[in-house]
Amino acid sequence: MRQLRFRDSDGDVRLGELADDEVTAFPKQASDLDSTATFAREDVETLPPCRPSKVVCVGRNYADHAEEMDSDVPDRPLFFLKPPNAVASDGDDLTLPSGKDRLDYEAEIAVVIGAQASDLDESEAMAHVAGFTCMNDISNRDDQRAEQNWIRGKAFDDSAPLGPVLATPDEVPADARLRCRVNGELRQDATREQFIFSIPELLADITRYVTLEPGDVLSTGTPEGVGRLEDGDRVEIELEGVGTLSNTVTIP
Amino acid sequence: MRQLRFRDSDGDVRLGELADDEVTAFPKQASDLDSTATFAREDVETLPPCRPSKVVCVGRNYADHAEEMDSDVPDRPLFFLKPPNAVASDGDDLTLPSGKDRLDYEAEIAVVIGAQASDLDESEAMAHVAGFTCMNDISNRDDQRAEQNWIRGKAFDDSAPLGPVLATPDEVPADARLRCRVNGELRQDATREQFIFSIPELLADITRYVTLEPGDVLSTGTPEGVGRLEDGDRVEIELEGVGTLSNTVTIP
Repeated sequence: MRQLRFRDSDGDVRLGELADDEVTAFPKQASDLDSTATFAREDVETLPPCRPSKVVCVGRNYADHAEEMDSDVPDRPLFFLKPPNAVASDGDDLTLPSGKDRLDYEAEIAVVIGAQASDLDESEAMAHVAGFTCMNDISNRDDQRAEQNWIRGKAFDDSAPLGPVLATPDEVPADARLRCRVNGELRQDATREQFIFSIPELLADITRYVTLEPGDVLSTGTPEGVGRLEDGDRVEIELEGVGTLSNTVTIP
Repeated sequence: MRQLRFRDSDGDVRLGELADDEVTAFPKQASDLDSTATFAREDVETLPPCRPSKVVCVGRNYADHAEEMDSDVPDRPLFFLKPPNAVASDGDDLTLPSGKDRLDYEAEIAVVIGAQASDLDESEAMAHVAGFTCMNDISNRDDQRAEQNWIRGKAFDDSAPLGPVLATPDEVPADARLRCRVNGELRQDATREQFIFSIPELLADITRYVTLEPGDVLSTGTPEGVGRLEDGDRVEIELEGVGTLSNTVTIP
């Protein structure tokens, strides 16, 4: 199932199933099963598919990207955080920091947590996953290179657009392709079969330290092909089974 | 005013004014001004004084602590993040990561945001501050020393106890003393007059990148005197005007 979070024409925030550009909204309350309604996708406002209390990101989880960044392949996952202010939605125009030489896109497969997760074994990790979405880990290299912790570099407002939907795991097999296009030109193309650390390995490691809550996001790193964004660029990140996260960027 | 967030005997979460170990609860609703009630402090459960969507922390903001950590004094603030799972309350027993050689306390003056803050000028920064509380920036040095971003080192569950109250700025003058005691022994003693970067400088810098929401916390760094925690230790962090944040630690 591909689940859309959206604002309906009454202004209410709802969840629904997206199929063929039609959204079948879930009932507003369990006691009101007849309130189901169908909307054309173009008539609703897409919202981020979840409301994370934190986005846990992974650096250098594809060997080819570590190489293009002149970085070693890590011996354990390199984690960093984006806070809720970083989250944006499919369709948003993203306003990025001004005065920087290099702002980059990074297409990523994002895992959405479905159940509170603490101190997980790898064997039980996937049972805590609600599904997948796309993320753009937008990066301000000027500051990232100068900082110990990547706050100005990675945690700024609008640096984590998510969407367009939350697709359940059955929709997104291991060979589902992640692609990034900038102004229509293909820049990144990979699958999670190329990960250095698997999703269960990542979840087992982070939850030894950090409890993940339902709606939290684990973004799993970017493959080779990252590159610069210019004012007005349109970035599309597509994950098979999820669809396409599309944003334009404004660099003031 | 010293504002306590607490759970009353009915299990309801409330806010109230703390004075002389008595809590005068604010009305539950504006339409119900007669619902004010008074509780003995010992009869209520203290909760964290705010519910941050993120805790923005500052490293090396006292020259004497940078020196004890063999670190240079930074030329701009060193920021890092703790997520909501890190927050704990006054009185909590904190369960810290197991199997580490060195877990440290760090007493800090924490600033609680009162109004959404983005791209602030220094001159307007203090108008966005609701007040002050105490924070213990508990640190896992084993991992902090090995990580690019301090996630296992600083963002783990229970690594950010906050409290006991939110004191309005008039209660906490610039020379209010911050002290840390471990099992009754004084370990840290400083005031914010010793900061390298002032609160307005910190807020102006971070809000160029990261929007702060009401209830978010900016923790302003720790003075010299940090040290090791052992299983069973009692840590008390006192800020004049706020009171004492007291926690025991369990290291499994």
